[in-house]
Amino acid sequence: MPSEHFRLLNTSGNARAGEIYTSHGTVPTPAFMPVGSQATVKTLTPDEVKQLGFGMVLANTYHLYLRPGIDIVEKLGGLHAFMAWDGAILTDSGGYQVFSLAPLRRIDDEGVTFRSHIDGSEHFLTPELAVRYQESLGADIIMVLDECPAYDDSREKIRASLTRTHRWARRCQQAHKLEDQALYAIVQGGIYPELRHESVEHLVSLDFPGYGIGGLSIGEPKEVTLSLVEETASRLPENKPRYLMGVGSPEDIVNGVARGVDIFDSALPTRVARNGALFTWRGRCNIRNASFNQTETPLDPDCDCYACRNFSAAYLSHLFRSNELLGLRLATLHNLRFISNLMQKIRSSIVDDTFDAFQREFLASYSTTDEQTRFEQKQRWLRGRNGG
Amino acid sequence: MPSEHFRLLNTSGNARAGEIYTSHGTVPTPAFMPVGSQATVKTLTPDEVKQLGFGMVLANTYHLYLRPGIDIVEKLGGLHAFMAWDGAILTDSGGYQVFSLAPLRRIDDEGVTFRSHIDGSEHFLTPELAVRYQESLGADIIMVLDECPAYDDSREKIRASLTRTHRWARRCQQAHKLEDQALYAIVQGGIYPELRHESVEHLVSLDFPGYGIGGLSIGEPKEVTLSLVEETASRLPENKPRYLMGVGSPEDIVNGVARGVDIFDSALPTRVARNGALFTWRGRCNIRNASFNQTETPLDPDCDCYACRNFSAAYLSHLFRSNELLGLRLATLHNLRFISNLMQKIRSSIVDDTFDAFQREFLASYSTTDEQTRFEQKQRWLRGRNGG
Repeated sequence: MPSEHFRLLNTSGNARAGEIYTSHGTVPTPAFMPVGSQATVKTLTPDEVKQLGFGMVLANTYHLYLRPGIDIVEKLGGLHAFMAWDGAILTDSGGYQVFSLAPLRRIDDEGVTFRSHIDGSEHFLTPELAVRYQESLGADIIMVLDECPAYDDSREKIRASLTRTHRWARRCQQAHKLEDQALYAIVQGGIYPELRHESVEHLVSLDFPGYGIGGLSIGEPKEVTLSLVEETASRLPENKPRYLMGVGSPEDIVNGVARGVDIFDSALPTRVARNGALFTWRGRCNIRNASFNQTETPLDPDCDCYACRNFSAAYLSHLFRSNELLGLRLATLHNLRFISNLMQKIRSSIVDDTFDAFQREFLASYSTTDEQTRFEQKQRWLRGRNGG
Repeated sequence: MPSEHFRLLNTSGNARAGEIYTSHGTVPTPAFMPVGSQATVKTLTPDEVKQLGFGMVLANTYHLYLRPGIDIVEKLGGLHAFMAWDGAILTDSGGYQVFSLAPLRRIDDEGVTFRSHIDGSEHFLTPELAVRYQESLGADIIMVLDECPAYDDSREKIRASLTRTHRWARRCQQAHKLEDQALYAIVQGGIYPELRHESVEHLVSLDFPGYGIGGLSIGEPKEVTLSLVEETASRLPENKPRYLMGVGSPEDIVNGVARGVDIFDSALPTRVARNGALFTWRGRCNIRNASFNQTETPLDPDCDCYACRNFSAAYLSHLFRSNELLGLRLATLHNLRFISNLMQKIRSSIVDDTFDAFQREFLASYSTTDEQTRFEQKQRWLRGRNGG
């Protein structure tokens, strides 16, 4: 890890603008990471991801462990070389996938046994192995192995799980040797503020270079999510980046930044794109809607994405109706460009100390699709087996 | 149509190098047209198709008539504007699709009634309507409506069908008004050389600016195809382009050029790419083959396509095994770049008058996959409902 990992540059209320330093470039924050679970941001080339304005992507240890295998990625020069991405990479440890996606798991203090969602084969993961795998993959930022309980598990169950998560965090820290790589801890604690506080206190005492906020936006009401994000972020150290894991709809990003979050990732922008749901500054719309059939103008005439600069909404609509793969590409480019532009606007407003006004205006105009977003997020727990 | 439509520049044996002039650019021949039945070359943007080296693509009137509808494409400024392609376009009349793909058809001298493969709705197509639709789409080259019998229909049936095809060609010619557009006739006659001769003689007497050779490579033995192509092409006028319809595997292109063909189209290179079958100068290989799992070098280290310049064969293999859409894109780019390079090599060898040696060398090294290709072509009659 470079000698300085993160610098906080500006604040506007609780919103923060900063920079993360990696040996694969500087990442301005607040940052959104497109999801490339299987070492590819679905439908896009690495060149395109970079041109969209992203400096860091997320890949999943769980997916890459099962396919093609950590040893193969390592043999091929590590994850950056494998996927031909010279920007920064963060890998998730596999905890979330093992606990939410794998059909069977058995956990004890040593680690977790789970079955592959691909072929049902049995595997064993420990904190030490999670670190070793992520060292082999060679990401710039890696995550501890945590236990990720369901949001409606009992307080007792979450309490016990938290103790284990904390022990595992320490074991990950002790196992981690690779210098050019930052290991982040993950705050858990379910929907219980006092458990979240305890988790923050414990993990901060271990002094990690960054902190994930895990186990949120997995089905609990949105007000609960926001309140817990605020509770958690406000207690984390000012000089360390805060990463709200698996959250990344436009409104969630704005709400998260308002509560002090620096990093986001989510498959939502790319997944809903492939369903034809496209972001505009007025909210989400669906390109399959009959109203777009004959629309000669681009989906969003003010958008500077490749799709909107070159094609009518009618053409995009035609591609979706005709099940053409180009439609999935163009929709993905559009949604990710929207998020990239959103992050830039957020950052500018923090630098200008006008974030509060930006947030109010954004949330007032981007209003219609909250229900859809919540539905998507509730589904998240059960989805994503194909990596986003 | 520009005052001069085609110029023959060089020959080498029966192989010909020339140029087709359109108001959307000059197309060097021999030319291969990537197939974009539904107004998109599957998985690719128009920019990419151009960068691959192609100046003309094929779109299908049948597909566009059913979805999004000719009127919508026309309202949106015609096919070039609709699909944002500023190169040349050739549209097929819909005859082939109506006769091979539509589940029900009823033909009389006036035209053909068919059912949509999308929703089963009934439609009526005449030579005059086929021309009118293609005028509305605004392609640079359009095709007459022809009847396309099965290769194993009886001689009597094909004889009767040929008479109708000839009458329809004349009606198309009389209906065609758009000056900036070339209308090509289509030679039919099944597998009967004397019917092919008769068809050539009749259509040449009507003086079209170009000639399609239709109804071949639809299941008949390859020797028969090649012999009929030779018979047909050698009787067509020297100063008109000859278009072997729906044929375009690497070996078929080389064999077709050797027999005097100037233009090819086929969904095969892009369709087999999406199945993981990739062209190399030694023949086809399948990227899903276990031997590629750990291959650090590109699929073809000498290939200059985007996929081979940026990724290992192992990564491409991983994308296919993981069902990642980027795999389909990279494979499509690779196969079309192979064809583009093949066309350039063919053309150079004709200009240098060394085509015969090129053909011998190519067919000797590109040898292993003939059986696979024939299987693909036999399937063609029953496939392609989703437009290639």
